[in-house]
Amino acid sequence: MDVLPPNVTRLINEFAKLPTIGPKTAERLSYYLLKSDLHTGLGEALLQLKDGLRRCEQCLTYTDSPLCKICASPTRDKSQIAVVSQSLDIVAIEKTGQYQGTYHVLGGLISPVDGLGPAELSIEPLFERVQRDMPTEIILALNPTVEGETTALYLVKKLSDLPVKVTRLAHGLPIGGDLEYADQMTLGRALSNRQVFS
Amino acid sequence: MDVLPPNVTRLINEFAKLPTIGPKTAERLSYYLLKSDLHTGLGEALLQLKDGLRRCEQCLTYTDSPLCKICASPTRDKSQIAVVSQSLDIVAIEKTGQYQGTYHVLGGLISPVDGLGPAELSIEPLFERVQRDMPTEIILALNPTVEGETTALYLVKKLSDLPVKVTRLAHGLPIGGDLEYADQMTLGRALSNRQVFS
Repeated sequence: MDVLPPNVTRLINEFAKLPTIGPKTAERLSYYLLKSDLHTGLGEALLQLKDGLRRCEQCLTYTDSPLCKICASPTRDKSQIAVVSQSLDIVAIEKTGQYQGTYHVLGGLISPVDGLGPAELSIEPLFERVQRDMPTEIILALNPTVEGETTALYLVKKLSDLPVKVTRLAHGLPIGGDLEYADQMTLGRALSNRQVFS
Repeated sequence: MDVLPPNVTRLINEFAKLPTIGPKTAERLSYYLLKSDLHTGLGEALLQLKDGLRRCEQCLTYTDSPLCKICASPTRDKSQIAVVSQSLDIVAIEKTGQYQGTYHVLGGLISPVDGLGPAELSIEPLFERVQRDMPTEIILALNPTVEGETTALYLVKKLSDLPVKVTRLAHGLPIGGDLEYADQMTLGRALSNRQVFS
């Protein structure tokens, strides 16, 4: 017997469409919301999520003004552009507090299995931006995966005719990780990229 | 620099209020919703969650009519009442397909640390229902935890003067589990409750 009221079933189904939320978690979240008064706040936040939201004209991240805060900031170094696959990666890099340059969001990575080729990504806008603004360095901050590598190689080739230095994030042992548990690819990279102790 | 548009920050904060959703998951869910068109469906389901929702007059579970489907059903066995702590437990028991009786939702378990005593739970309505409807069996289907045990003991004592049999769910090895990984409490219960092989 289906014992759930339709409103609850509907919410469970909507939650279960989200990544990392399975049917059990969807049930628990829905019942938690039934008991709490958080459903209104979350519901309104969701319905208003895209109100006034647009893409930054320069770096293509999500923003609520023509230029995002970073592109509009006079203190950010316009000579550096970090190329990321998605806006969320900007949040991660900003949290390090170690980068003062600007960004460019590709909107994905080259992935033939998913039908994503260079034409589906914002590679042409990056190319035009580099030609126009003449930055001195492009930092490829892409995932250390097959898709990330493929995209990096494509970008390096595409940018090779322009007078700009192309760098990438370092690969090696993650801080706090255990050497014995590192996979062989990571350990191999850490070895070949070993640095002089200073 | 806070690089997120306020709409997105707001949604992340709302998600992070939910149990099992940490700040990282809240970020990922919010960005996933930005790229998809699921935010409207989920938002509307949340805002309408409690529309027309009430408690079943008999068993106190969530329903959209005076009596829930189970209490209103002529085929359910009214002589059995399974006492559960929350509505979600009804869903779990119904999935077994092995129970044809009715339910009673306590709305929690006795837990002095959380300030939950017998008066905060729907124990009095259960007592009245037993006196009125004269069921033959009360099945205590409560969590095998300290709070569940405390509540079970309280109910057994409270119901002892009434002519009703009080039973509880069996404790023992979970199906598919490994004996060597069972904790000593569970294994002890499985031993003391051992059954004749039939």
